[in-house]
Amino acid sequence: MSRPQPLSGFPELLPRQRIVEQQVVEHLGRVFELHGFANIQTRAIEPLDQLLSKGETSKEVYVLRRLQADADGGDAGLGLHFDLTVPFARYVLENSGKLNFPFRRYQIQPCWRGERPQEGRYREFWQADIDVIDQGELPAHYEVEVALVIADALRGLPIPPVRMHVNNRKLSQGFYQGVGIEDTEAALRIIDKLDKIGPDAVAKLLVDEVKASPEQAEACLNLASISASDTSFVGDIRALGVTNDLLEEGLTELAAVVEAANEAAPGFVVADMKIARGLDYYTGTVYETVMEGYESLGSICSGGRYDKLASDGKNTYPGVGLSIGISRILVPLLQAGKLDATREVPTCVLVAVANEDERSNANALAQRLRRRGVPTQVSPSAAKFGKQIKFADKRGIPFVLFANEEGTQIKDIRSGDQETIDVDQWDPPVQDLYARIVTG
Amino acid sequence: MSRPQPLSGFPELLPRQRIVEQQVVEHLGRVFELHGFANIQTRAIEPLDQLLSKGETSKEVYVLRRLQADADGGDAGLGLHFDLTVPFARYVLENSGKLNFPFRRYQIQPCWRGERPQEGRYREFWQADIDVIDQGELPAHYEVEVALVIADALRGLPIPPVRMHVNNRKLSQGFYQGVGIEDTEAALRIIDKLDKIGPDAVAKLLVDEVKASPEQAEACLNLASISASDTSFVGDIRALGVTNDLLEEGLTELAAVVEAANEAAPGFVVADMKIARGLDYYTGTVYETVMEGYESLGSICSGGRYDKLASDGKNTYPGVGLSIGISRILVPLLQAGKLDATREVPTCVLVAVANEDERSNANALAQRLRRRGVPTQVSPSAAKFGKQIKFADKRGIPFVLFANEEGTQIKDIRSGDQETIDVDQWDPPVQDLYARIVTG
Repeated sequence: MSRPQPLSGFPELLPRQRIVEQQVVEHLGRVFELHGFANIQTRAIEPLDQLLSKGETSKEVYVLRRLQADADGGDAGLGLHFDLTVPFARYVLENSGKLNFPFRRYQIQPCWRGERPQEGRYREFWQADIDVIDQGELPAHYEVEVALVIADALRGLPIPPVRMHVNNRKLSQGFYQGVGIEDTEAALRIIDKLDKIGPDAVAKLLVDEVKASPEQAEACLNLASISASDTSFVGDIRALGVTNDLLEEGLTELAAVVEAANEAAPGFVVADMKIARGLDYYTGTVYETVMEGYESLGSICSGGRYDKLASDGKNTYPGVGLSIGISRILVPLLQAGKLDATREVPTCVLVAVANEDERSNANALAQRLRRRGVPTQVSPSAAKFGKQIKFADKRGIPFVLFANEEGTQIKDIRSGDQETIDVDQWDPPVQDLYARIVTG
Repeated sequence: MSRPQPLSGFPELLPRQRIVEQQVVEHLGRVFELHGFANIQTRAIEPLDQLLSKGETSKEVYVLRRLQADADGGDAGLGLHFDLTVPFARYVLENSGKLNFPFRRYQIQPCWRGERPQEGRYREFWQADIDVIDQGELPAHYEVEVALVIADALRGLPIPPVRMHVNNRKLSQGFYQGVGIEDTEAALRIIDKLDKIGPDAVAKLLVDEVKASPEQAEACLNLASISASDTSFVGDIRALGVTNDLLEEGLTELAAVVEAANEAAPGFVVADMKIARGLDYYTGTVYETVMEGYESLGSICSGGRYDKLASDGKNTYPGVGLSIGISRILVPLLQAGKLDATREVPTCVLVAVANEDERSNANALAQRLRRRGVPTQVSPSAAKFGKQIKFADKRGIPFVLFANEEGTQIKDIRSGDQETIDVDQWDPPVQDLYARIVTG
């Protein structure tokens, strides 16, 4: 085997980078559980027909076959999931008789899309999703709650400040109806491109593809230009002079989300009428989140309310959820050296070995520290003491323990301080017990 | 969408089962980190040529293609990994300049094999691997250490007693050489089938496929019948009267493993000469682990020493590792109801809502409990109090909090006990804070 090359679009982390990712993932899981979300994991693989029926990403699906599949392809029809929402909806339908509704779950897993790789966009990427799904009706207060859970989760991370931009599909689609546009879903998909292609190209697409008049296109762009960190957007939209029942519903719902979010997490949410989301299945509030200084990554946490994603004919299961792009946030920050760990191993103490005959004594000492929760490993060889210190130093292990005629001694290899200890009593300083994230 | 059906071989867990799996995985990670193993994750996808060059599972690999791949198949040549050892060896080679050796890592991820599903054998399954890999030479004491880490990890789990069966490839291959068999690797692969097909069929295969005489086949079976929980196996093997240098090396190494393991984890390891392992790359100690009462599942934790798996031409990276079959252990125990959780949600406290106008007060109360580490959710609706209690009861949430004119009251819905509390002071009993695993 010659030295293998990385696969473009499949980022992998070095051990010290992985410590950062691990702690981020643990933090997210802890916050979600504090809010009563239960964890599930779904299989990586879904029937292709499910994957292909859900929105614009279908063309990027990875299809599977067994190497030794029958020639008749009896094994075909499976692919890797491209998000966690579609598998979750399938899981809910499959297990609806065994779940209690409203069902709150979080899910942290990789997804796969065969996209052209670029910064923040990978072929294999990790997402952390929360959703609340109900049977029949889903109360609107969940559209506020999921945003607040995300505020709690993201604000505890060592990343640049983030802001969530919210809109409501009813508001936009009602407005488009109000100005006389028929294919409001197509109009939404075009408005979704605004940041990428600019207002002129959007206006042209609206005219060309949804047969909007130049005046209608301008009205759509006027709406998209409105944003506010409070409910003042309601007046701004009313001033555009469009009336429509669906628009009114959307205005009321969005105002409620902005108001409640401002009360609980001031400054986190901003109403932004250009947010549309590319996926067809959203029907109410939609969310996108931008990280300050990293706007070019696009949204690092997106989602929305979906009323019709899951239905088994007898019941429908409306839901609302948000998805944090763990890889999209972390891989660029790690690659730029903005995030690092204090060491590359979990180990807090290295037990030195004076000669190989004493290895089992060293193992026993190490085990006593582990019983008390101190991550400990034993030196790989009975090399000179200086070499064993160097071994610890290279990995960032802060302490070396050794037994000699004077008893058991611990050395802080950063300061050189050394003291005689009782291994059943000694505790490392709290900040040294585990590796920590450092920002740079 | 009609109700979807499960995919055979792709087990998924209900929320309360997933709590069990989560706690098992957390326990394993905690033990591995206490022993100084760093976590890594590798991509799910490897180049097909890598996957197909490593042993007998190659025929069960899932091959990938992008749905919209070019007609020339420029995208081809990728597959899902079938274990975590092959990706780990590739990761080590790819990053060898950035890693410090010996490198101790653990990895907990799903793997995929297109096998016929049966109990304990799935098409998607989770494994937890530990390995120590070095550059150039790997000291033999790691062959003891990885077994002891696994002893620590498995003994802390709420599963039936387990026992690790160890052998050494040098011992078996040296013995086969000593009796005059040439293709010792083929002989090993045949002996590996002993439990499945029995001694007569094994003898026949040895005669037919490696051209053993009936006497040579009998000698191999005699060796395979030897096992001992101490080093008495050395005398038993010597009594067979075969002499060979490689055999002697193997005897010495295996005796050292058994002796050291017996000292540190009495009763965990048994020397068992019929253990061979199917994979070609093992070169020293090999391990299999059986769970009492679940022998039919086969080995729930296997591995071995491999000297030649990873080499970049300039350096070789010998290693030793073990892999715990998380799905193989847990799915049968969960499906049989032997393991369960005390509740199906992380939630410890449900905050009741008297009417919708008070939802934001309820949210604020909940947030104060969360700040103190108590998993809390707010009632989905301002239903009658009895209905809110029932909501908690159905999910196993032990406490309901409500605010009235007398202050903030907490009710233990199991006992009915109710008391006025200060939410900034109150702590639930330790055993109620998180869901716990119960065995049945």
